[in-house]
Parts: sequence; C-alpha cells; structure tokens
Amino acid sequence: MIKIAIDCMGGDEGLAVTIPGTVQVANRYPDTHFLLVGLVDQIEAALERAKPANRSQFEIVSAAEVVTMDDPVEVALRRKKDSSMRVAITCVKDGRADACVSSGNTGALMALSRFILKMLPGIDRPAIATALPNVKGGGTTVLDLGANVDCSAEHLLEFGIMGSALVQAIDHIDAPTVGILNIGQEDIKGNDQVKQAAQLLKSSHLNFYGNVEGDDIFKGTTDVIVCDGFVGNSVLKAIEGTAKMILGQIKLEFKRNPFSRFAALLSMPVFKRLRQRLDNRRYNGAALLGLRGVVFKSHGSADELAFACAVERARGAVASNLLSKIIHSVERSNAIKSQNE
Amino acid sequence: MIKIAIDCMGGDEGLAVTIPGTVQVANRYPDTHFLLVGLVDQIEAALERAKPANRSQFEIVSAAEVVTMDDPVEVALRRKKDSSMRVAITCVKDGRADACVSSGNTGALMALSRFILKMLPGIDRPAIATALPNVKGGGTTVLDLGANVDCSAEHLLEFGIMGSALVQAIDHIDAPTVGILNIGQEDIKGNDQVKQAAQLLKSSHLNFYGNVEGDDIFKGTTDVIVCDGFVGNSVLKAIEGTAKMILGQIKLEFKRNPFSRFAALLSMPVFKRLRQRLDNRRYNGAALLGLRGVVFKSHGSADELAFACAVERARGAVASNLLSKIIHSVERSNAIKSQNE
Repeated sequence: MIKIAIDCMGGDEGLAVTIPGTVQVANRYPDTHFLLVGLVDQIEAALERAKPANRSQFEIVSAAEVVTMDDPVEVALRRKKDSSMRVAITCVKDGRADACVSSGNTGALMALSRFILKMLPGIDRPAIATALPNVKGGGTTVLDLGANVDCSAEHLLEFGIMGSALVQAIDHIDAPTVGILNIGQEDIKGNDQVKQAAQLLKSSHLNFYGNVEGDDIFKGTTDVIVCDGFVGNSVLKAIEGTAKMILGQIKLEFKRNPFSRFAALLSMPVFKRLRQRLDNRRYNGAALLGLRGVVFKSHGSADELAFACAVERARGAVASNLLSKIIHSVERSNAIKSQNE
Repeated sequence: MIKIAIDCMGGDEGLAVTIPGTVQVANRYPDTHFLLVGLVDQIEAALERAKPANRSQFEIVSAAEVVTMDDPVEVALRRKKDSSMRVAITCVKDGRADACVSSGNTGALMALSRFILKMLPGIDRPAIATALPNVKGGGTTVLDLGANVDCSAEHLLEFGIMGSALVQAIDHIDAPTVGILNIGQEDIKGNDQVKQAAQLLKSSHLNFYGNVEGDDIFKGTTDVIVCDGFVGNSVLKAIEGTAKMILGQIKLEFKRNPFSRFAALLSMPVFKRLRQRLDNRRYNGAALLGLRGVVFKSHGSADELAFACAVERARGAVASNLLSKIIHSVERSNAIKSQNE
C-alpha cells in the first residue's frame, strides 16, 4: 500500500485546492493512503466538503504552523519547527509515508527536504526536474531548474542519471534519451563544464543523444535535457513569460471590438482543444531528486486538477520504485567509471 | 553623409532579400549611401529589379566568395579572403563605410569583425545584443546572446555599458534601466559571478535596477537585461521555440475541421493585428557590440521588411554615434572605479 503525505497548507489557495485535488487521486487509486498534514479542524472540514468515496484512505496529521511563500529558508529551517511542510517531510523520513507533496515555497521545501531526508548515496547535489509539453504530444523532462546555481560536469552527469530514472519511473520509457543543453549542436560548442559533461555522459550507460538547444525542449528531441540550475531556471521563466505574453495578446486582440468578440465566440472550441493540448497543469509536479525520499513540488498557483497531477506523479514515482532506480543507476555509473580508470 | 556596407550575399535568400530590403531604407533616407558587396553582375540585376528612387545612393563593391551558413569560422577567417562578409567589414575598417550589415553565419561574422576591426579600448569581450518585444509595446534589449560562453562580473558590467549605449542610440532613451538576469529578485540569489556583477553595476554610473528573471524580458521591467552568452542564447532559443510551438498548435487546431476553419476565417483580422503586435521582424538586427565599428547581424531567414529593419537599426546607431557613446561610458565607468579604489 502506497502512502503519501500532503502538505495541505501550502500554495496560493491552501486547503481549497490541496484537499479536493488529493481526493481526486484517492478516488482514482483505492490502494493509496494519504496523510493530510496541517491544521486539523480546517482539514476535517475541507475533507468533508470534498466528499471522498472512502474516508478511510485519509489520516489527518497535526501541524500548527505554515511556511509562507515569503518565508526565508532560515525561518522554515530554524523557526517554524511545526510547519505542515516540515511535518509532511518528516513523515517520509520516519517511514510513515512513501512520498510527500507540497505547493509551498520551493527554496524552503528543498532546504527542509535536504536537511531532514539527506542525500542518496553517490548523489552530491539535489536537482529539481519538471516535464514540459512538446509537439510530439509527450513531455520533455528538464533538470536542474534552480536547486544549483553552479554545477560541475559530474553534477550534470548526476542530473542525467536522476532524470533518466524519473522518466523511466513515471513515463515508463525504458532507455530515455538524454540531451545536454548547449548553444549549438557541434561538439566544440559551449563552456568547459558542458563539454566535459558531454564526455562523461557519452561514456556512461545512459542513452546519451548529444547537444540540444533551447528550442529542442518543445521539439521533444530527447526525453531528458540536463543543464545547470541557473540556465534551467532562466529558461523556464522565459518560457512561462513567452506563453503568457502570447496568450495574453491573443485575448486582448479578440476582445477589441464586437466583430472580434464574435470571432472569439466561434473560436471557443479551438481554444478549448488548444488548452487541452498545451495544458501545463497536466505536467504539474516537479520532482526534487537526489534525496532519500520522494518529494514533489506542485506549482503554488495550482488548481485542483493541477494539484491532483502532482500527487499522481508522486504516487507513480513510488509505485515504480524511483529511488531504487536512481541508486541502481548510480552504481552502474560508478562501475563504468572505475572500469575506465 | 552616412554610408552602410551591405553583405548582399548572406542569409537564406541572399540578394532576393538584401537588395529590396536595402532599397526600402535608401528610399526612406535620401542622405544615406550604400555599398552593396558581392557578385557585381547579380547585384546590378537585383538592384535594377528593385527600382531604387535614386540609383546614385548605391555603389557596388565586388566580392567573389560567399561565407555559407555551414562554413566553420576557420574557413571564413583563413580561406575565403574575398567573401562578401569580409569585404563588407573591411569597408568599415578602411573608413569607406560607417557600418556593416550581414545576414550571414553569426560565428563567422563575429570572428571576422573581431579580427578585422579589433576591440574598442576598455572593452574586453564583444557581445551580441538584440531587442525582444515586450507587453509595454517597446523592446527589451538582451545581451549577451552567445558571443561568450563564460563571463566574469567585469564582462557583465561591460555588457551593461554597451547595452545602455545601444538603447540610448537606437531607442533614444536617456538613462536606460539595466537589470541583471538572475534566478530570483533577492540580492542573495544567484552564483558568485552574478552577485559580484550586481555590485559592480550598482556602484557604476548606469541606471541599475537590480535582479530580473526570465519573464521580465516580456514584462519590459527594464530597458536592458545583461546575462552571460550561454544563458542568453539558451533563453533566446527557448523563447523562439515556445512561440513557434504555441502559434503552430493554434494553426493546427484552426485547421482541424470545417467549423474551425470558418472560425479561423473570421479571426483573420485578429491574427493580423496580433502579428503586427508581436512581429519580431520589427526587432530584427542584432548589434555586435564592443568592436571598433558598427556591425549588425540580420536573422538568416529575414524577409525584405525584416532586413530593412536591421539596416535601419545600423543606420540609427551610426546617426546617434553609438561608438562614441560606448567609449564615453567606458571612460566614466573607469573614472568611478579608480575613485573607489
């Protein structure tokens, strides 16, 4: 039986999203149990409103404090010792839960997870990974998205190992292709760290494709793309900004006059299908990889459907033994390295 | 009188775009002369077809070779000594032209420009800068976009100086705001190099705003955004990829069935206005900054209108004394530095 701890108090909407989102997943997977962490009375009330099919899938775990979006990492680490985020992660540490999902502040979630759970053997740096929709209809998993502002070649290899294991576990792809983000396809491109990382990836057991560029994320050229956290974070925010700007401008233009408003009305089914196709809610749920436990981060602005996706991804990672996949892959990588030495 | 050398043979379409594009600008600015560089006979014929208002604005300069998009930098530098790109840059070096515009291979253009023109005093690294449309209806100038794969804090300060001078010269903004691309707004965010660069920018004479993130490009938070070339190039390609994917999916969905095709027909004026608003052709023309000469790079796939924009930007940079603005700003920066020491 899979057990998932939910930080019910995190995110812009808190319980109004986390509880109904979790109930959706519970109804879909009767084998899964949930530890709902936060203010007991409020969770009770929200759970009743969400009308779960089977109340016995849920256990409420008390936590009196909340880590806010603006809380510095230090506050989450040293001051709010009874926060829902911290208690949820501790449930994983103590073996009460197999995974934890939170929509709280990413920096705090990463710091607390690292502090409480510690790193997996053989992994030096944690990484944040998320999937972005590509034109092939699938998702391209990109990491790191901001846990590390500078990475060595070895760290980029670790990201390749962890990203591959994640895609194997969640998307059930046997030998995911791995690309390294670079500023050109030729081997001579890029800085030293990226060139060295490409060499390490090439001689590893991973299905290494080679250099990819920023637009390959959407082409779906590879299943996994590795990059340092500074680049990954900047690219992710630029992508979000571009999408927001284009869709915002389309809306603006459709609202401009009665004629265009009429065209908008007729175009509604088109935009509905477009929304389904590009719906980034379906890809909500970033994995915090490299830890001795499964931790997923939902977007702070997630709605019910998006939050449910994050919970479902966490559940999938547990069901497919993500952690042992990573450990096994690290061992294979080290064996190859010591052979080559 | 302003004189601009045009590498007529560069870009996907060569003369079919470069000549009519240049003629557009010539007709708009009767004070400007053009050195059309490339295969003489072909240029003669294309110029005749383009029907310039005043033929005496044009002089044809012979160059027998062409640098192709696939030519390695070494070929452009050491082998094709009579390429239209090289001859056009040499016109600037020899004082026959004030600026040069090419849609050829960026790597070759940068290497040749650096080799032939040399760097401006006080500038250590050249940078590629381009403007991207923002929701405020203006452009956000981003640099570096790929000339440097690793940069020190001092290089990022140089980019701030050059980017500000470019925006002053072309957009006629007196004290452009400068942001530094980072993975968060707080001062503690980012890697050492970015943190140090922020300190240098803060104590400089530039109108420094502080940290910005990937989505601020589109918000138009600052006039200039500086970043290292690896990040800038990755972000730029991710933006292009996102825009292409969204617009491609919209097209696909509108073509799906007779009803949606009808909706598309009615929506045409909307998409026409959208195109005008987001038209990146209007922002075509990346500046190669830091050289002892004005060099602009047009997109290889530019059409007439886009190429004309690049030529017009180059003309504007000359008319507003871009180079002396940069030199003056470097001197001010050095004066402040030595005061602080």
